[in-house]
Amino acid sequence: MIKVGIVGGTGYTGVELLRILATHPDAQLTAITSRKEDGLPVADMYPSLRGRVQIAFSSPDKANLTQCDVVFFATPHGVAMAQAQELLAAGVKVIDLAADFRMKDVAQFEKWYGIPHTCKDVLAEAVYGLPELNRDAIRSARVIGNPGCYPTTMQLGFAPLLQAKVIDAGSLIADCKSGVSGAGRKAEIGILFSETSDSFKAYGVSGHRHTPETIEQLQRMSDQPVGLLFTPHLVPMIRGMHSTLYARLTADVSNEQLQALFEQAYRNEPFVDVMPFGSHPETRSTRGSNMLRIALHRPNNGNTVIVLVVQDNLVKGASGQAVQCMNLMFGLPETTGLMHVPVLP
Amino acid sequence: MIKVGIVGGTGYTGVELLRILATHPDAQLTAITSRKEDGLPVADMYPSLRGRVQIAFSSPDKANLTQCDVVFFATPHGVAMAQAQELLAAGVKVIDLAADFRMKDVAQFEKWYGIPHTCKDVLAEAVYGLPELNRDAIRSARVIGNPGCYPTTMQLGFAPLLQAKVIDAGSLIADCKSGVSGAGRKAEIGILFSETSDSFKAYGVSGHRHTPETIEQLQRMSDQPVGLLFTPHLVPMIRGMHSTLYARLTADVSNEQLQALFEQAYRNEPFVDVMPFGSHPETRSTRGSNMLRIALHRPNNGNTVIVLVVQDNLVKGASGQAVQCMNLMFGLPETTGLMHVPVLP
Amino acid sequence: MIKVGIVGGTGYTGVELLRILATHPDAQLTAITSRKEDGLPVADMYPSLRGRVQIAFSSPDKANLTQCDVVFFATPHGVAMAQAQELLAAGVKVIDLAADFRMKDVAQFEKWYGIPHTCKDVLAEAVYGLPELNRDAIRSARVIGNPGCYPTTMQLGFAPLLQAKVIDAGSLIADCKSGVSGAGRKAEIGILFSETSDSFKAYGVSGHRHTPETIEQLQRMSDQPVGLLFTPHLVPMIRGMHSTLYARLTADVSNEQLQALFEQAYRNEPFVDVMPFGSHPETRSTRGSNMLRIALHRPNNGNTVIVLVVQDNLVKGASGQAVQCMNLMFGLPETTGLMHVPVLP
Amino acid sequence: MIKVGIVGGTGYTGVELLRILATHPDAQLTAITSRKEDGLPVADMYPSLRGRVQIAFSSPDKANLTQCDVVFFATPHGVAMAQAQELLAAGVKVIDLAADFRMKDVAQFEKWYGIPHTCKDVLAEAVYGLPELNRDAIRSARVIGNPGCYPTTMQLGFAPLLQAKVIDAGSLIADCKSGVSGAGRKAEIGILFSETSDSFKAYGVSGHRHTPETIEQLQRMSDQPVGLLFTPHLVPMIRGMHSTLYARLTADVSNEQLQALFEQAYRNEPFVDVMPFGSHPETRSTRGSNMLRIALHRPNNGNTVIVLVVQDNLVKGASGQAVQCMNLMFGLPETTGLMHVPVLP
Repeated sequence: MIKVGIVGGTGYTGVELLRILATHPDAQLTAITSRKEDGLPVADMYPSLRGRVQIAFSSPDKANLTQCDVVFFATPHGVAMAQAQELLAAGVKVIDLAADFRMKDVAQFEKWYGIPHTCKDVLAEAVYGLPELNRDAIRSARVIGNPGCYPTTMQLGFAPLLQAKVIDAGSLIADCKSGVSGAGRKAEIGILFSETSDSFKAYGVSGHRHTPETIEQLQRMSDQPVGLLFTPHLVPMIRGMHSTLYARLTADVSNEQLQALFEQAYRNEPFVDVMPFGSHPETRSTRGSNMLRIALHRPNNGNTVIVLVVQDNLVKGASGQAVQCMNLMFGLPETTGLMHVPVLP
Repeated sequence: MIKVGIVGGTGYTGVELLRILATHPDAQLTAITSRKEDGLPVADMYPSLRGRVQIAFSSPDKANLTQCDVVFFATPHGVAMAQAQELLAAGVKVIDLAADFRMKDVAQFEKWYGIPHTCKDVLAEAVYGLPELNRDAIRSARVIGNPGCYPTTMQLGFAPLLQAKVIDAGSLIADCKSGVSGAGRKAEIGILFSETSDSFKAYGVSGHRHTPETIEQLQRMSDQPVGLLFTPHLVPMIRGMHSTLYARLTADVSNEQLQALFEQAYRNEPFVDVMPFGSHPETRSTRGSNMLRIALHRPNNGNTVIVLVVQDNLVKGASGQAVQCMNLMFGLPETTGLMHVPVLP
Repeated sequence: MIKVGIVGGTGYTGVELLRILATHPDAQLTAITSRKEDGLPVADMYPSLRGRVQIAFSSPDKANLTQCDVVFFATPHGVAMAQAQELLAAGVKVIDLAADFRMKDVAQFEKWYGIPHTCKDVLAEAVYGLPELNRDAIRSARVIGNPGCYPTTMQLGFAPLLQAKVIDAGSLIADCKSGVSGAGRKAEIGILFSETSDSFKAYGVSGHRHTPETIEQLQRMSDQPVGLLFTPHLVPMIRGMHSTLYARLTADVSNEQLQALFEQAYRNEPFVDVMPFGSHPETRSTRGSNMLRIALHRPNNGNTVIVLVVQDNLVKGASGQAVQCMNLMFGLPETTGLMHVPVLP
Repeated sequence: MIKVGIVGGTGYTGVELLRILATHPDAQLTAITSRKEDGLPVADMYPSLRGRVQIAFSSPDKANLTQCDVVFFATPHGVAMAQAQELLAAGVKVIDLAADFRMKDVAQFEKWYGIPHTCKDVLAEAVYGLPELNRDAIRSARVIGNPGCYPTTMQLGFAPLLQAKVIDAGSLIADCKSGVSGAGRKAEIGILFSETSDSFKAYGVSGHRHTPETIEQLQRMSDQPVGLLFTPHLVPMIRGMHSTLYARLTADVSNEQLQALFEQAYRNEPFVDVMPFGSHPETRSTRGSNMLRIALHRPNNGNTVIVLVVQDNLVKGASGQAVQCMNLMFGLPETTGLMHVPVLP
């Protein structure tokens, strides 16, 4: 059994880790920290876990995380970088669901997250945790920077096109929509029910921190300088993410060839579903599961290909992906504990 | 492996059966019928099942249901009673999620469902499929009438009080609230998004077919004539049911004694969670799972006890309960394939 | 023109006052206070008011409220009682949307609101602002305690029955459901979108501050000691309130007589709509309007009458009712500025 | 008083016309037709109109529409073209909320709507009812083709840029999102609450009938051939539309100049609100009102301008715009009866 610790388990990615790990056959929840909730049984905060998760929150000083085999950080940005070194020294693997270990470009990190990066050594060895594009490196990693939710969809949606060099990498557009849980479990007016329900809006249109993360990764697939417009929107739903990606074709390819690029790229992927050409995936078709679905369109057989990508932002976009990385790091079958069938309706 | 057939798998209880059975270790989906969708892969109608459920709908004449070990009817009322006899004759067990085999009182059935009961022989041997109150009979049953969603909450909420004879059985009130999926997957104006979202209403206040079903069962627990006012309401949510039950105390019992009645009654039940006295269970704490949660209140220590009961109407209120019955009927551990952790948020 | 001041206009009852008063032909928005938002144009906080409301928030010391004809308090409990005396002394009328002037029973106020009542003189002359039951007193009042949202529905729903002495006043049950806006615009985890959407729960079942307020008013209509069980629930919708009231009949009355009691009581009321016997009012049929709708049921012609009451909790349940009181206090036709047609769908 | 008839008042644009016209000071509801609901008081179908709209539906043969001054068609496509000629001959003006008189290009109409156009004479004189771009023609029109909801946002969002010739007209992208009411009030599975709530999807990505309508109008503003990719999405909200428009700049313009283009274009428009550069308009800021709001963004000061446009799809996107046209056709102030303040929250 893998002894698992979680730092910061009171947010949505934290409780989602708990939901997944509670039925993971090879994982044993060993410690979960929360300074504020020390002593509180996890199931008292989240009654959905009553009878299924027995441990209580403990304050960081009592949690003894160095006895774990792996520690997940489901914390705000900046926490993992303060604790990673000590854990690694004790032989504990680290998976950070925040941004501390996502971007190699420290200047970009510091610009967008507004805090100095205090752990550049660890950053240097950290591996970007997107298994479909980075599987081998994850297998041997000690530290994972788990991808952002939006970046997961953008990378898996653009990758086959960039790798095949059939699109203009300099004029990518990603019009993305997320459920409200993506904003986290924070006491903020802007994400109240009465503020977000029955309404729709864009946010961060002039600039969002997921842009540099995504560009850094996409650039690895292209010789051409990557240009990306990323426009996030807030949808009145709890979970779910839908990215509508626009790319200008630069090569003479048929629709069948486009479809084949994707089917080929993901033919062995357990968590990427390439739907028939012209499909309209719904976010609910991934609810509660680690699946990500992709469908291609090409209006009027013109020179723009539209890629629709959906996922559950808390699973494939966060905690499920993190467990997928854990499975790889510990030599388990990649799908272990992750075969939830989506909850629909 | 239990060979499972499903009649009428295109509705919400049908797709929920598929979701549950897709990961049930001892069940094998063998046939699923739909006259209209003959030949259509199930996963084409429900993309959430892509890669997880391989079979296609077939028309009833081709489905060869008599080769199954058990057939679930996820159909409108009246279908199961037309086919049950033939299946039983072939040694197939039958679990009906509709009302055909719920009520022993044929007159009541015919009054409330508006169709003649054409299968009284089978009805006579049919067992009411509420395991917590009827476990032994279910184990040896050939035919199950799976309880209605509302009746499940009312029975499990009132039972300990009635059995202990501490309330007035003649003046029960059940003010119940259901998510919209309870109305099924039918092309009807009244359950459109734009009709039900951001609104709340009661329906069927002057009379609802779940009243006689519930009274028939509650009467088995009481010498006194049962009187029940049942008021259903429609909540703008997909899944979830919340019943607020009012009972007048007729005995001098303390709150601790009341709480003990429930904890005692359900202490070995894997799917009934008695929460601490004074809790406020949320429907989402059961979403996607077979759990039902109960909490007691007694305002001002007065003579009325309020029982709050929540469940997922499609799982414990329908398909999960049906699989729970199947497990009992085939001698499997009762929780087999039913240990989903609720999806929250 | 009536010069209107608003204290605390940043919450939902505040912005709703602004929406209504912006098109009120006899009211002129003169001042709106907010310590935190001093100088901010109201329309910058609420873009829905762009081009329609020109004034800016000002800090209390600059607002010069004594120049107003009337001041509304859309504040937390305790604010109005600190400022009422000074305003009254300056000849300004006061309408408090919080609880400071609702209950004559100071001990009950202090018990339920947890603060001492510091303004008992004003409380003594304050008038309970429910026009349908208290119209004459409101006309000549200088201070109004605007009713709570739930109490409005309970009083208008029970009043005709109590006044006609046909029910047992000692065993009233009110099972009530409110949209989330009723909890106000506060940065609290419990009312986040991801916490309340797609779920349903009761709260405050063991005791809620609207119970003593309602009992104090209902007691005025009955010789018998009033007993009331009030159970509030939270509905995943923004606006809307639905109260399901249960009363035990003590007199031999026909359904026609019951219906006549209500039609008679409210026959001249512009904002109370008695629907045909057996109707199921939807909250959306009042959305954005000052209407309250009532429908009666009597299952099985038994001895319990069920009264269904719906309203928009922010309008008839709060700000619309306050403007209705203002109209009365200033001798205007009661419906002035309040004839919005409900927004449906 | 303008005598108003409505054909097909049972859908959402119909009831929205009723809501607006019920308080329009110069309009008198004279007739409303529905073959199926003949004799039913309108307020029985829509209780929100109880006490506010007195007329009943009548079958077309009884309705005597030729006595009206204007007839609105809130019907499926194809109905207005069958009745327009007779009404015009009787001196009645016609405003069609469907597509019959929107597109001059008959071949395009027939291709996208799948029915032959049987009324080309009337089509020839019909005026496209977008007041901000076509005011003078509307004033003198006898027949109005009221714009589609999406096309309204796309035209008002792109127009200032096209007219100023600062963008590439050949590569426009419109990523648009609509509330579910845009799909109408039809008994269809796909728009059930349980199918659309808590989910998000694109639809019609490979081709949608609002594309040719929009291109026909945009082409009037540009010498360059217009190329438009239009991608509609379905949002789990009742009302509201958000269009995210992408245009490639071809001229050297500053952000201030871009902003000035829009402020100049709409400086006298009562129903178009140009928000400060960089704003994020929410659909709810227009709920229930005829306002449309626009905000500009230019990420990284690059060569793409992003225009965010929001409106209430049933008001400015349909019925409010139709009444705006009526006001112009009858020489009334354009804002008459249309000054509803948006309902927020």
